[in-house]
Amino acid sequence: MPKISEERKAERREQILTGARRCFAEYGYEGATVVRLERATGLSRGAIFNYFVSKDALFLELAWRDNQRFVRLWLDKGWDAALREVAAEDPDWLGVYLEITRKFRTDPDFRQAHEARTTEELAPPLLERVRSLQESGSLRGDKTPEQLAGFIGLVANGVVVQLAAGDPIRNMDALIELVGSAVRAPARSRTPSRKRV
Amino acid sequence: MPKISEERKAERREQILTGARRCFAEYGYEGATVVRLERATGLSRGAIFNYFVSKDALFLELAWRDNQRFVRLWLDKGWDAALREVAAEDPDWLGVYLEITRKFRTDPDFRQAHEARTTEELAPPLLERVRSLQESGSLRGDKTPEQLAGFIGLVANGVVVQLAAGDPIRNMDALIELVGSAVRAPARSRTPSRKRV
Repeated sequence: MPKISEERKAERREQILTGARRCFAEYGYEGATVVRLERATGLSRGAIFNYFVSKDALFLELAWRDNQRFVRLWLDKGWDAALREVAAEDPDWLGVYLEITRKFRTDPDFRQAHEARTTEELAPPLLERVRSLQESGSLRGDKTPEQLAGFIGLVANGVVVQLAAGDPIRNMDALIELVGSAVRAPARSRTPSRKRV
Repeated sequence: MPKISEERKAERREQILTGARRCFAEYGYEGATVVRLERATGLSRGAIFNYFVSKDALFLELAWRDNQRFVRLWLDKGWDAALREVAAEDPDWLGVYLEITRKFRTDPDFRQAHEARTTEELAPPLLERVRSLQESGSLRGDKTPEQLAGFIGLVANGVVVQLAAGDPIRNMDALIELVGSAVRAPARSRTPSRKRV
């Protein structure tokens, strides 16, 4: 086998992920067979499984990237921008998450692989941000950072279900306002210079 | 075939629904084969499909009853009691909803069968209740009844995803408080006698 550069390897990885995402969205998790993954990525099964040890691992990398994008957007532009991003996502792709929700509960390896990275890499900066917004008086202080971040995550999951069921969010601004009323500090305790939440 | 009384028919219907619910929860939607449904209900396929035209129809009746129970509890004891009921549900059963979410989007007959009854029977009393609580100053008046009820429904779906993924709601009181802050009228506009929301 010819030696290929690191750059070429990274490209291949992206090529596999992009094709696989499309394939999962179109056929669902079970329906995304190896043959279909080969067709969608333009690569042989040998090449695909050289980069990802299994279909589970391939899917988990895609799920991880979505979580990462959600959290980064939250850190950069606020939870409202992150929620809007979820609401603009392809319903077919969102549906794949729901299809395999059960695996998170019933397959300990699957769950652990997903949770470890999230807990280590994504949760700390997010909770730190929430804590700092509580201290500055933007977010309510009578709930833990975990509860506030968890609530926004729960709302994001509610958005996923609604979209995957074919029911668009009719008024995203209204939803954002409702979530804002839930997590923001009451007006009287807020600092004069209102910060981004 | 011997003639059976209406009472006996109603009993059979319940027997089928009870067994089918257990069967769906245990094996998932696809996994609940006719053979397994026969075993779980203690009845032949002929008997089962004499009461329900298809597996879809059987599942939709169960889903309909859950929605009905959720709305009745909301009307009788408030949205908070209804959310607590969802959070206490069997994760296996909740997972079946997620498994077939896609059908609501992609199968127009399935969707229509579910929506028609909900729109006709459940939505009117619920929206009427929300409207009356807005008028009495318990719920915020700057959002439509559809937006407030829709928000609580979206949170309920978020609870379903979290439970089905094996992650219990750690602090249900905190979640209820957050949702309450979202939907209740600000303190100053509330009437002195605080009503149940």
